[in-house]
Amino acid sequence: MKVSIIGATGYTGEELLRILASHPEAELVYITSESSTGEAINTIYPHFNRFYDKKLASISQLAEIGAGSDAVFLGLPHGHAMDAARKMLEAGTRVIDLGADYRFSDPAVYEQWYKVTHTHPEAQSVYGLTELYRDRVKNASIVGNPGCYTTASILALAPLVKHRLVELDTIIVDAKSGISGAGRGLALNSHFSEAFENVKAYNIGGHRHTPEIEQALSELAGTAVVISFTPHLIPMTRGILSTCYARLKAGVSAGNVDQAYEAMYGSEFFIRMLGRGGYPATKNTRGSNFCDLGWHVDNRTGRVVAVSAIDNLVKGAAGQAVQNLNVMFGLDERTGLLQAPLYP
Amino acid sequence: MKVSIIGATGYTGEELLRILASHPEAELVYITSESSTGEAINTIYPHFNRFYDKKLASISQLAEIGAGSDAVFLGLPHGHAMDAARKMLEAGTRVIDLGADYRFSDPAVYEQWYKVTHTHPEAQSVYGLTELYRDRVKNASIVGNPGCYTTASILALAPLVKHRLVELDTIIVDAKSGISGAGRGLALNSHFSEAFENVKAYNIGGHRHTPEIEQALSELAGTAVVISFTPHLIPMTRGILSTCYARLKAGVSAGNVDQAYEAMYGSEFFIRMLGRGGYPATKNTRGSNFCDLGWHVDNRTGRVVAVSAIDNLVKGAAGQAVQNLNVMFGLDERTGLLQAPLYP
Amino acid sequence: MKVSIIGATGYTGEELLRILASHPEAELVYITSESSTGEAINTIYPHFNRFYDKKLASISQLAEIGAGSDAVFLGLPHGHAMDAARKMLEAGTRVIDLGADYRFSDPAVYEQWYKVTHTHPEAQSVYGLTELYRDRVKNASIVGNPGCYTTASILALAPLVKHRLVELDTIIVDAKSGISGAGRGLALNSHFSEAFENVKAYNIGGHRHTPEIEQALSELAGTAVVISFTPHLIPMTRGILSTCYARLKAGVSAGNVDQAYEAMYGSEFFIRMLGRGGYPATKNTRGSNFCDLGWHVDNRTGRVVAVSAIDNLVKGAAGQAVQNLNVMFGLDERTGLLQAPLYP
Amino acid sequence: MKVSIIGATGYTGEELLRILASHPEAELVYITSESSTGEAINTIYPHFNRFYDKKLASISQLAEIGAGSDAVFLGLPHGHAMDAARKMLEAGTRVIDLGADYRFSDPAVYEQWYKVTHTHPEAQSVYGLTELYRDRVKNASIVGNPGCYTTASILALAPLVKHRLVELDTIIVDAKSGISGAGRGLALNSHFSEAFENVKAYNIGGHRHTPEIEQALSELAGTAVVISFTPHLIPMTRGILSTCYARLKAGVSAGNVDQAYEAMYGSEFFIRMLGRGGYPATKNTRGSNFCDLGWHVDNRTGRVVAVSAIDNLVKGAAGQAVQNLNVMFGLDERTGLLQAPLYP
Repeated sequence: MKVSIIGATGYTGEELLRILASHPEAELVYITSESSTGEAINTIYPHFNRFYDKKLASISQLAEIGAGSDAVFLGLPHGHAMDAARKMLEAGTRVIDLGADYRFSDPAVYEQWYKVTHTHPEAQSVYGLTELYRDRVKNASIVGNPGCYTTASILALAPLVKHRLVELDTIIVDAKSGISGAGRGLALNSHFSEAFENVKAYNIGGHRHTPEIEQALSELAGTAVVISFTPHLIPMTRGILSTCYARLKAGVSAGNVDQAYEAMYGSEFFIRMLGRGGYPATKNTRGSNFCDLGWHVDNRTGRVVAVSAIDNLVKGAAGQAVQNLNVMFGLDERTGLLQAPLYP
Repeated sequence: MKVSIIGATGYTGEELLRILASHPEAELVYITSESSTGEAINTIYPHFNRFYDKKLASISQLAEIGAGSDAVFLGLPHGHAMDAARKMLEAGTRVIDLGADYRFSDPAVYEQWYKVTHTHPEAQSVYGLTELYRDRVKNASIVGNPGCYTTASILALAPLVKHRLVELDTIIVDAKSGISGAGRGLALNSHFSEAFENVKAYNIGGHRHTPEIEQALSELAGTAVVISFTPHLIPMTRGILSTCYARLKAGVSAGNVDQAYEAMYGSEFFIRMLGRGGYPATKNTRGSNFCDLGWHVDNRTGRVVAVSAIDNLVKGAAGQAVQNLNVMFGLDERTGLLQAPLYP
Repeated sequence: MKVSIIGATGYTGEELLRILASHPEAELVYITSESSTGEAINTIYPHFNRFYDKKLASISQLAEIGAGSDAVFLGLPHGHAMDAARKMLEAGTRVIDLGADYRFSDPAVYEQWYKVTHTHPEAQSVYGLTELYRDRVKNASIVGNPGCYTTASILALAPLVKHRLVELDTIIVDAKSGISGAGRGLALNSHFSEAFENVKAYNIGGHRHTPEIEQALSELAGTAVVISFTPHLIPMTRGILSTCYARLKAGVSAGNVDQAYEAMYGSEFFIRMLGRGGYPATKNTRGSNFCDLGWHVDNRTGRVVAVSAIDNLVKGAAGQAVQNLNVMFGLDERTGLLQAPLYP
Repeated sequence: MKVSIIGATGYTGEELLRILASHPEAELVYITSESSTGEAINTIYPHFNRFYDKKLASISQLAEIGAGSDAVFLGLPHGHAMDAARKMLEAGTRVIDLGADYRFSDPAVYEQWYKVTHTHPEAQSVYGLTELYRDRVKNASIVGNPGCYTTASILALAPLVKHRLVELDTIIVDAKSGISGAGRGLALNSHFSEAFENVKAYNIGGHRHTPEIEQALSELAGTAVVISFTPHLIPMTRGILSTCYARLKAGVSAGNVDQAYEAMYGSEFFIRMLGRGGYPATKNTRGSNFCDLGWHVDNRTGRVVAVSAIDNLVKGAAGQAVQNLNVMFGLDERTGLLQAPLYP
């Protein structure tokens, strides 16, 4: 299986390279970067010495890349994947887009939140939250790989929504992300001295992962779900913790909640349920594709609080992309994703 | 004004010493520690060289301490302040307790959450959230100084509750604390390699600051308020960010919300309102007694999200204690608390 | 005493503002920024709410600034202070330059290491390491304020060199700095995800603080001293630890070393000697103007190891600048610098 | 190949488990812990869910463990490995000791620095710095696995010493370690709020890794080498950076230095030479068994500065232990150690 990465020098691309270095079935063919075309990837990321010395190609070589690849990962800013994806599909190459361009079944939602025209609305894209949409991913020619906050939040809430255990208009997601989620581009918010020993919220009510979470929950509920979503920046590199609140419907017991999680995830390898009363910690998932889950039923308030932890660059990006790749090509979906988390 | 500190070697006691070092009206008389009696405070905390070389006394010297002090700060574990406080009051010494023993108007609530018998229920203690209860603090002989999460959360929510802007049964507080909040006692949760590059929730639905927040909100509302409160440990030393959610009552406008905050805090020195759309950051308050506030009205969901930031050891503990001391002794309440925050 | 800051929005300028906010004798008149002219300083640094709302002027208003100020701090990149300094001096305004332009008695050394022509070689500038050159600073019209690594390293080594206790050609300085030393300008080296959980050396043998250390040591020794200096970036915001090695001359005892430190710093307020065997820690100096010193005599190797800790933005920059201001204007040099360090 | 770990719940034991989880040839048989006997390892370390649910045995089961294992890793405090090792050897089980008990060819040196009697001086132990002593390790029945500082420092200096390029009495090692090196045992030095935003040196002139470095360098030099070694605690979890200084002998050129490194490490997989002028960073090695090396020749001072970076828990402990296991059992020494570093 020959794979290429368009946009390989951001943290998502770099993480794909890290994972693919241990993937026994994927052969890396092309990697591209417009800012560093011609350079070797290990001069940009010296931690890749002994693993890669491949030179970076350019997106201008798309035809060649498409012809030589069975699958292509797109690690481009939103709005920039559509041209490349169209050409890849025309070349018969399957696509996994790590940006937002193919995450929405309704292009109007995409256009409303991202302020970009969707130029490829006819694409038969599949939303790649593997545990929920594995069957669709199998035969997809193009997968919109979920966002990082999104993955953590949907996985925490899905059993509650699917099994009709909570009042849908009471869902609140309070999420905390390490700073690698902001990417490698320089910005004051990710300047060390500003971000260190500091916590703050941002984009309250307006973060673009909101409609993505709502899309998945709405499909599970069979009706439109609107949530409050608040992201926070935390002084660490990797990890997302998503703390999700909802009011339980009258008559729902703690046992019902337990059963909903068990029914949905009991046989999922990458979902590790700590059970009722469990406390996921981002550090337990670092460097791995796991999503750790715990839930709490608070009789005093009638609420359930579900907490999920992931590594934002793995299950929240590159790891789930490789999981999808495996599903698309009929491999065991754990292939290349079996390293134990790096702790402490 | 002669002041003493019973239990001076924990982080709260240490922070009191730091603040009192710049306080022009307070003369430090006694400091105690049972684990380090007889040692000089600057051997335990060498950063105090040039400021203090006082030797630590013992709580067994209470009589002497009471006789020689106008006010005493108690920095003891909950359950241990009541004996000392009673003796101080008998000696005519005013007391500010930084623990939980005097925070509750109903001793039964204290006993239920802290699993300790309250042996001093007749004490005329005042809850020392200065901005809300300044008038009571003035003449108090004993003040129960609020908890850290509590201070941040009540200050964020008080205007919304007092002005009847939110549905009281929809209040959720998601709080993030630096690890100094767990104190100086050794524990795996505050072991560097476990806490660094890690985020997790703890005590969901059961944290002892919950009833304290509820007590204040209930008094403001004139009816019992029950909230969901979730604390999180964040990999930094100081700071609490409290993200508070509630559904707005029908007909409440964003302008109403703005007015409520302005009405309540417009003339408060230590409350710095960043206004609607503002994003408090813990780093902006570090080392200071400020509480920074911002709020967001989300028309899509009908919710208000209020965010507050404090330094947990200052406004969340020692700073507010000194603010209360100032109020009790008729000083400008800013005395000794006018240092600019340490940034970056 | 009216003071202004040219270049007030970098971390050094910001730290000057923090300190001056507690300075009883200094009245702030002008602050400038070319990138943010016209903006209020508290919109750029919201932690200054309640302290400053002054609007930023421009360096183009130099004449006005000079006329209205008794002293001016220059917080400009090297090579950019000379024009401004000349005009200030002509206006009779005293100058403290926090950059490198006035640190060298020999302009040729400056030009060699900084690759910039010195256009103001006739300036009667004084090197502002206060503890060493206090008498010169008193009457100086222009002070070259020392660098951060420099301050820590010279203070650690000066007694050994002045008292001829070490072989001068064996001096090695291994220094570790928090990342605020790299300033507020965006760069990959100070991007959070790159710098966090990481340590590395840089500019080995070529860092520009090397000749500054050598200049001071040479003057103390009465002969040219050449040292090895290696700076490192450490994942924290503030603080420098300087570990200094030298071989003791034959016959020098540990007692001689103790006496040299005592003789030189015994009456210095801002030098806190932890003595032989003492271990300075950067955290003990955070937010303060102290330099903590410890030294170790290793009979096995015949070497002395001296260790110093400072806050790079205070004693290593803005604090020492205010200390110099105080000396220049006949104030107690501790004025405005008496806050206890922020610990933990 | 059946392996067991005596003392599996410290960070070294835990890291062994992480690596062995990806090792295709090693079957884990027993793991022990005296404090948690009977518990499952994944209750202590939940990040191991999906990898291990093995119950912890006790060291009292040594006979059984020896009989069932081809090799045993000892993760015990120094002084406690000798009894266990002797029994393992008698059972014909090969031993890799991650503590200090078998690192010294001269038991008197061990006894002098560790203040413990060596009760097993007749053991034919081999010092397991794989790159230097691979041939001895092959047939060893017992390997003393090197310390973390030691590995980084010896690898940086070995080519310079072996090729007689430096004056042996001028060697200084200034090392910086992440806090996981202090282990999982609770202590004030590794309490989060004390260690975070802090740097300090410790054990100057007295750290027990000093004689271990000297032993290796002396053997390479063919004469006794005495060095200065200073360890520092850095606020990060993993990683050691070792900055090593020495004066070059007269006539030694930069090219000679380059050749010495190339000659010694040119074909070593786990030594990644960044070459002259290169700057190793600990983050580039995180989670991997690599040692990154760079060196600098400073003509101004006549010194060479060699810098090495490792992950203290991998190449500095568990990784090198597995590398030695591979060598001892005739496997490719990279087996199980081919994961790319986790960056950022």
